[in-house]
Amino acid sequence: MDVKFVEMALLYDFYGSVLTLRQQEIIDLYYMKDYSLAEIGELLGISRQAVHDNLKRAKKQLYGMEDSLGLVKRFHRDRKEWSVVLDRIAGVIDALEAEGGKEKLMAELREIMEFITQATGG
Amino acid sequence: MDVKFVEMALLYDFYGSVLTLRQQEIIDLYYMKDYSLAEIGELLGISRQAVHDNLKRAKKQLYGMEDSLGLVKRFHRDRKEWSVVLDRIAGVIDALEAEGGKEKLMAELREIMEFITQATGG
Repeated sequence: MDVKFVEMALLYDFYGSVLTLRQQEIIDLYYMKDYSLAEIGELLGISRQAVHDNLKRAKKQLYGMEDSLGLVKRFHRDRKEWSVVLDRIAGVIDALEAEGGKEKLMAELREIMEFITQATGG
Repeated sequence: MDVKFVEMALLYDFYGSVLTLRQQEIIDLYYMKDYSLAEIGELLGISRQAVHDNLKRAKKQLYGMEDSLGLVKRFHRDRKEWSVVLDRIAGVIDALEAEGGKEKLMAELREIMEFITQATGG
């Protein structure tokens, strides 16, 4: 996927619910389902220009929300931080493994890593 | 602090940046600094009624954002989940302590706990 599409997918994921249903529909069709402006216009019974304007407004709103709340930026930062945590727990597991006979503690730490991976969005 | 004030402090923390500067000022004075509507009016040179209306609009916006994005709800849920993670890591530390001689691994896990505590907002 194009980097801009990934960025838009994140913006849409975090802030999509503040858009109108029509805007959500257009963003979804254009960015997630790869329809052209003309195709979306046909599908929704509006002009290509109206789709274009709606899309532009929607994008402006999503970027405006990000400017205010910065959830996408925080998401990227958090992912980096949590991967450090996971690496460190993995290091503890390695150290336990080197000693042998610590299967229960290792299993527990692996479960904790799995939880953190899930909780921080995989 | 009143429960409603705590709730408002969280809403303001997450979404305050979408409000106008005037609204932010009024929320801050009323909820965080405990000024009365009349006192805020005097301070800002507007009527008590104008403060009241502004406050009402600001609250409506903050609750609207929460209805859309649910960051406060997620915050409460995350806190519960992370406290389980921290308890489990503490359990591993206890088990290592019972064996003796595992100071380095215990110190490493304590640092990881400290990081998670910081990262999840204390």
